[in-house]
Amino acid sequence: MTWIEDRDDTETYAGRETQLPDNGRSAVRRGEAKEEWRGSKPAPRRAKPGSNVSQMHYARRGIITPEMAYVAAREGCDVSLVVDEVAAGRAIIPANVNHPECEPMIIGKRFPVKVNANIGNSAVTSSIAEEVDKLTWAVTWGADTVMDLSTGDDIHTTREWIVRNSPVPIGTVPLYRALEKVDGEADKLTREIFRDTVIEQCEQGVDYMTIHAGVLLRHVPLTAERVTGIVSRGGSIMAGWCPAHHEENFLYTHFDELCEIFAAYDVSFSLGDGLRPGSVADANDEAQFAELHTPAELTERAWKHDVQVMVEGPGHVPLHLVEENVRLQQELCHGAPFYTLGPLATDIAPGYDHITSAIGAATIAMHGTAMLCYVTPKEHLGLPNRDDVKTGVITYKLAAHSADVAKGHPGARDWDDALSKARFEFRWRDQFALSLDPTTAESFHDETLPAEGAKTAHFCSMCGPKFCSMRISRDVRERFKEKSAEFVELGGTVYVEG
Amino acid sequence: MTWIEDRDDTETYAGRETQLPDNGRSAVRRGEAKEEWRGSKPAPRRAKPGSNVSQMHYARRGIITPEMAYVAAREGCDVSLVVDEVAAGRAIIPANVNHPECEPMIIGKRFPVKVNANIGNSAVTSSIAEEVDKLTWAVTWGADTVMDLSTGDDIHTTREWIVRNSPVPIGTVPLYRALEKVDGEADKLTREIFRDTVIEQCEQGVDYMTIHAGVLLRHVPLTAERVTGIVSRGGSIMAGWCPAHHEENFLYTHFDELCEIFAAYDVSFSLGDGLRPGSVADANDEAQFAELHTPAELTERAWKHDVQVMVEGPGHVPLHLVEENVRLQQELCHGAPFYTLGPLATDIAPGYDHITSAIGAATIAMHGTAMLCYVTPKEHLGLPNRDDVKTGVITYKLAAHSADVAKGHPGARDWDDALSKARFEFRWRDQFALSLDPTTAESFHDETLPAEGAKTAHFCSMCGPKFCSMRISRDVRERFKEKSAEFVELGGTVYVEG
Repeated sequence: MTWIEDRDDTETYAGRETQLPDNGRSAVRRGEAKEEWRGSKPAPRRAKPGSNVSQMHYARRGIITPEMAYVAAREGCDVSLVVDEVAAGRAIIPANVNHPECEPMIIGKRFPVKVNANIGNSAVTSSIAEEVDKLTWAVTWGADTVMDLSTGDDIHTTREWIVRNSPVPIGTVPLYRALEKVDGEADKLTREIFRDTVIEQCEQGVDYMTIHAGVLLRHVPLTAERVTGIVSRGGSIMAGWCPAHHEENFLYTHFDELCEIFAAYDVSFSLGDGLRPGSVADANDEAQFAELHTPAELTERAWKHDVQVMVEGPGHVPLHLVEENVRLQQELCHGAPFYTLGPLATDIAPGYDHITSAIGAATIAMHGTAMLCYVTPKEHLGLPNRDDVKTGVITYKLAAHSADVAKGHPGARDWDDALSKARFEFRWRDQFALSLDPTTAESFHDETLPAEGAKTAHFCSMCGPKFCSMRISRDVRERFKEKSAEFVELGGTVYVEG
Repeated sequence: MTWIEDRDDTETYAGRETQLPDNGRSAVRRGEAKEEWRGSKPAPRRAKPGSNVSQMHYARRGIITPEMAYVAAREGCDVSLVVDEVAAGRAIIPANVNHPECEPMIIGKRFPVKVNANIGNSAVTSSIAEEVDKLTWAVTWGADTVMDLSTGDDIHTTREWIVRNSPVPIGTVPLYRALEKVDGEADKLTREIFRDTVIEQCEQGVDYMTIHAGVLLRHVPLTAERVTGIVSRGGSIMAGWCPAHHEENFLYTHFDELCEIFAAYDVSFSLGDGLRPGSVADANDEAQFAELHTPAELTERAWKHDVQVMVEGPGHVPLHLVEENVRLQQELCHGAPFYTLGPLATDIAPGYDHITSAIGAATIAMHGTAMLCYVTPKEHLGLPNRDDVKTGVITYKLAAHSADVAKGHPGARDWDDALSKARFEFRWRDQFALSLDPTTAESFHDETLPAEGAKTAHFCSMCGPKFCSMRISRDVRERFKEKSAEFVELGGTVYVEG
């Protein structure tokens, strides 16, 4: 982490003491936390008084940080593009100074579309080891960021294990943790408890946090006639809190306090869309678009603090209404990166919602969404397991890449072309290696033709040797080359016919 | 089949005698056909001399056939819409008079998007029993038509088993069978052998046939610089045949002969796109769009015979180029139904091409494609098995339905709304039952919460009881209802803030 120290604008400090209740009521009951993290853990670090350590702050001063240089090298672009986009708020580099294990990456529409994988336990199922395994597995298959959405036991320790093991930015929803601190009773939530939770996570190294500051009191009645009401967990919690307290959402009223904290650690906002539609019936409705004006306002407020922001989006949206979501968000939020969950193009296929949502995701990304939050086959049905995580990540990587190709991102199609050339030349091993999921591609091929010789054969079991169009096509091409003079002549008599 | 007899415009006849070579070289070698069909089989039937028995012919005369009435009842529309669309050629009802086992259905952009499932053996793998099982399985999960693309052993007998067992229209590519009759050597193909094969299949009851009449001599050189050449099996065969014979494609030059045959059995054309792109690099190129002018011309020629036509489309197309495919096809082919294979939005995910193609399929269907040919996870890698068939069908049903919803097809969203309401009301059993794949949805749910009580619980393992947004949202809604007067008052002081 010398690159952070070298800037000499942060300092280590004692930090908040971890308390048993941080691991939830079950830990209190047991009298101890489970499987405490015993690996190395840097002392918490934050900006020196008066300093702002956000990448946006540096970018706006024209400072090229090692994080920006790293990102430019990864993306194969000029570093000036990185600096410009971050300075303008059109891209973010989520990089908490307390997460030096992270390899910096960028989220913005001028860069390839990124994919986030959600992991985390629930009160019903999973363990720390399983969640760390899901993290590693998600990153193996290409997740660009991972959100730890744990809501079950040992949340603090689980998060510590995840952050310390993660080479990608980690996002969280601190509201989940805060709610656990008040025994799950939303009405008891306070600004102080929330603030304490945010600092706890800033010190651990969480790189971005979803803040449901967009749900305001006046929005709640707009959801009354919806088919599926409020489907964001954070949104529903705040929608319950406001009327119970006769107060406006404290995340909104005390947003500047959060900005100050985030600036000291370089945590990025992911402004939650608490009223996103949970069914195609509710898409693009009054509640959803009314809420969108709040992140628009909050983006400006965060930018005044040089704090990085992205804005979350839906959800469930029929295909013909997808584009409007990006257009409005980009317009209202001044180009801050859009980060959408899917959206699902239809509600009728639980068990296949990675696919219903990949359809919407590819479409929304093509129109300018910067990062896609994956959906797994278990969506709406249960907590995803390791296999579901892989399926979700691969599905979203292909959706994101489809968008990169459609957007004409420099170099995006090279990958497709390399794979297709390998396919046309029957280089099966290259075709597998170039696949998003080489092991699955190879095992599907080998299911019917396992012999080593089939790896160079000019056919597969789909059509068999006589009917492989690619083989025939290559033969035809050779024949045409040999006889080109003859065909020119022939052309004179035959071509006129059609 | 009384509804066919009652029209009194067909007659039965002795028909072509089945020969051992119809089942391929292996049958000849063995000296017998395998597993001959021993169930009932109607005597072949065809139009009486001078009659035309196509649904288009009737529709153009304003005759409402039982097939049209059945279709209208299925679709829940006025029969006049069916008659009008079929008469205009914008929709087809594939219904060979020799396939009375078929329940008539309609393919056209004014109706919900349909899904075709390809089955059939290859020289490398599969048996008759397996293929019949795939047919039944595909229909169970919602395939609207099935194409038997067998290229391996016992093709004739396999087809007989499939047609006799199928309640949905069966499509074939007679060129595959014809090629087998000349020992797989494309150069030996003749118009006579092809004609014989077509009649063989007309008598069996095949409802539509892919005819690769679009590939003309002058098109072939246009594919020379392609990344993946010619990827249609039929296309590559004809592209090889033309130069070998110094002749134009006989399917094109003798197209009217085919029209006469098809009119006598009511077989529909599926005009093959022999030069469809096989990689995103080759999408919307000169070869592809040059070929599209031939089906445009052939559609008119078929319509002169009152023969029903649909036109096949790609393939592999990046998302930003998808719409142009439908627009051009609809424009050039006078609104004849478009029937596309995917298209795949990217080439990089073999093993997941049901998904890469579902993205393109939903998009192209939203823009007016009438039927989607499914792609299974095995695409490019091997012959699909029973599980792949199911995955392909479900994936395409959800893509087709996404398009129906986006197109605003009357009643399409009702299904989504019913499922979403069940979800919001925690009617788990209804949620499963309303799913495209109830067994998968239920098994995913039960993986973590198998107890019967969980079927009425107000949560699932994804978020656990405390964090279920739908539960919280319902509570909030109740609270708002109870206190509405209070909130009106509160609104006066709080709402002004945002």
